[in-house]
Amino acid sequence: MEQINNIKVVPCTSSNYLRPFRVHYNQVSRYSLIARYHLVSVLIFNTTSHCFILVKQFRPAVYMSEWERSKPKPLQPAEEESLEAAPAEPKVPEEDKAGETSKVTSSHQPPASAGVTYELCAGLVDKPNLSLEEIARQEVLEECGYDVPVAKLRKITSYRSGVGVTGSKQTMFYAEVSEENRVGEGGGKPQEGELIEVVKVPLHEAMTFAFDESIPKTMGVIFSFIWFHSNMSPKYKISTNV
Amino acid sequence: MEQINNIKVVPCTSSNYLRPFRVHYNQVSRYSLIARYHLVSVLIFNTTSHCFILVKQFRPAVYMSEWERSKPKPLQPAEEESLEAAPAEPKVPEEDKAGETSKVTSSHQPPASAGVTYELCAGLVDKPNLSLEEIARQEVLEECGYDVPVAKLRKITSYRSGVGVTGSKQTMFYAEVSEENRVGEGGGKPQEGELIEVVKVPLHEAMTFAFDESIPKTMGVIFSFIWFHSNMSPKYKISTNV
Repeated sequence: MEQINNIKVVPCTSSNYLRPFRVHYNQVSRYSLIARYHLVSVLIFNTTSHCFILVKQFRPAVYMSEWERSKPKPLQPAEEESLEAAPAEPKVPEEDKAGETSKVTSSHQPPASAGVTYELCAGLVDKPNLSLEEIARQEVLEECGYDVPVAKLRKITSYRSGVGVTGSKQTMFYAEVSEENRVGEGGGKPQEGELIEVVKVPLHEAMTFAFDESIPKTMGVIFSFIWFHSNMSPKYKISTNV
Repeated sequence: MEQINNIKVVPCTSSNYLRPFRVHYNQVSRYSLIARYHLVSVLIFNTTSHCFILVKQFRPAVYMSEWERSKPKPLQPAEEESLEAAPAEPKVPEEDKAGETSKVTSSHQPPASAGVTYELCAGLVDKPNLSLEEIARQEVLEECGYDVPVAKLRKITSYRSGVGVTGSKQTMFYAEVSEENRVGEGGGKPQEGELIEVVKVPLHEAMTFAFDESIPKTMGVIFSFIWFHSNMSPKYKISTNV
């Protein structure tokens, strides 16, 4: 997770995951947005250890947002050439020497940890032949290593995320797992660029974790912890320090 | 709100609000993302009418997401020419006749209401000389018509939104207002393309509203209502139908 380096920024007009659009309507209005897949996310509670299972991952978008905030002028990708950043590490490996002559100096570049966030296990709805529950089940297995029967997934609710940019519909599930469901280490698919660390948050620390702003996290984590508090007690006890 | 028509889709490589990037790191990984401003949002509670004040607006990103979902093939902006959509209304005004010959037939195009979502009052952090509280205050005034002293804004928490795409930091506030703070109609800035309707949700209906999936809304609405329930009772009573 801390070995993110050799960061280059280049313009992007399209990718498999994002397609930038501009929409014009009512003659005068125009709006820039991104087409993106819908999403599923899963609040996982381990009933053996009484811990929530989250994922921690390096998010390039968060990292770039932090990097940009630390610079006086917004980062603009060059049209003809990429901006090349020096590695964040003080010791520059031989093969990275080219980075030292780049336009963006390493003093501007935050450490990789600036892009790491805590999130619910989640994934894109990119398999039309699978139900939302089946996609959620696959994500729990791939990212967190638990094999949960589809029937044990309970829908919490659905909502719109990124209404200003992607407009994706996100469906959130709740899954109770036990150590018996654990069949692997999780970690995502490294071959697809996923670098995921599985993290346990003990139930009695959950609300403090949720509202600790020094821990970068998504709204999904905060909401689902408070949802658990409202819905799963008195089945489970949880600190009410909100 | 229902008069959104003449929708055209064109490619977008950059705008004042979104800048598509591709980030390469660790030689093998690459990631597409969008640079975007940070955000503030405000849960507004009117202590005179015991209602939450939300905004309802047409979101092109949500609309396009719905439109795309209703089509067998993903919507791709043409490189040389825009896709032009026929207006959704059965009666086509004279000046819109060109739309009838477009590639996208009106049978595919959902009504404008498919893009309307309920949200917290919110705005971009795009004024470097103003504090988050001052920007939040301006948004409450512009969008909802209430003049709230900065000192009355209470921070709920902050979190990352759109971690896969924008990585924006979002800070959420709570503001209690009364009818005495009401100085205008709100509605946003129509000259900047904002078409905002101010909506009241009575306190006793809030939790039913939050979890009614037929009402399109953001996670911010659901979370802030459940936060209010956990934190503002017993000061105010709220239905616990979650």
